[in-house]
Amino acid sequence: MERNKALEIVAKQLTEKRYKHTLGVTETAIQLAERYHVDKKKAELAAIFHDYAKFRPLEEMKKIIIEQNYDARLLKYNPELWHAPVGAYLVEHEAGIQDIEILNAIRYHTSGRRNMTSLEKVIYIADYIEPGRQFLGVEEARNLAEKDLNEALLFAVRNTIVFLMNKNQPVYPDTFELYNDIVIKKER
Amino acid sequence: MERNKALEIVAKQLTEKRYKHTLGVTETAIQLAERYHVDKKKAELAAIFHDYAKFRPLEEMKKIIIEQNYDARLLKYNPELWHAPVGAYLVEHEAGIQDIEILNAIRYHTSGRRNMTSLEKVIYIADYIEPGRQFLGVEEARNLAEKDLNEALLFAVRNTIVFLMNKNQPVYPDTFELYNDIVIKKER
Repeated sequence: MERNKALEIVAKQLTEKRYKHTLGVTETAIQLAERYHVDKKKAELAAIFHDYAKFRPLEEMKKIIIEQNYDARLLKYNPELWHAPVGAYLVEHEAGIQDIEILNAIRYHTSGRRNMTSLEKVIYIADYIEPGRQFLGVEEARNLAEKDLNEALLFAVRNTIVFLMNKNQPVYPDTFELYNDIVIKKER
Repeated sequence: MERNKALEIVAKQLTEKRYKHTLGVTETAIQLAERYHVDKKKAELAAIFHDYAKFRPLEEMKKIIIEQNYDARLLKYNPELWHAPVGAYLVEHEAGIQDIEILNAIRYHTSGRRNMTSLEKVIYIADYIEPGRQFLGVEEARNLAEKDLNEALLFAVRNTIVFLMNKNQPVYPDTFELYNDIVIKKER
């Protein structure tokens, strides 16, 4: 799918602010893809579509999670997580994207998971550091992303876990598994 | 088993420093048991024996984990975790303690787990806050333990996770599950 066509499709799904965020993620994802030898076209499309389901009603998302037999634990955890797997589903069935690598990058862009592909990492990190993001540590994350994709990922997932724990919020098991996956691979 | 007999048995297994720690955990565990209506005798015995395997050679611990078919993931994570399940095994087979509640309190005193019993929580927290412990936050943990066992547990497990993550060390899945278990139950 051409960039402009994809942008036209997502623009209808997003607020102006979220569309601007999407453009930031897209720009950053293409840069990271270039740096880490990831397919730039796939990175571009995954980034454009990553928040496709962001503004769907919770009830619709819940229905899709149940009907598609997605991990039922999702329903116990933060609904903020739901738009990622639901997005992968809707991007396939409404926008016609069938590339599983792109769909997985959308599916795991919020929780992360073990054994992420480089494309999945690129989208996860681009979403974390795109130019519109402002939070304590974002500059360090951007610097790490220029040097080492896994170090940037470790930084982002660790920060995310601490952020959630400071608010006494549950942490989706895939996110904890991502953390352990990175540090155990580092030790080898 | 009588207190003095139990102390005599563990004294042979521990360094002087670790024996002193054990006395601190025992004293604290009895206080917590009193406060939270847990069987004091069980708390006393579990505390006395909790570090029984602490100084066993890693090879012996590894052998027991494999032969007893304990969770094989233990071997991938910090060997500091091993003495807890191995301790439960040895306390049963060498010291003759057969009470499963006591053995489980020993088994889970380092990692924690989902759905901990009050006795398990008492031993986990007593080990964390006994009078000999000195670390940033221990006073807050002691204060919480006087008011609310689950809040003290949440504080301890959160601190432990952050401590490990700051050192880029893996966090045993049961520990992450304990964290999520507490905060999800709090939300209800």
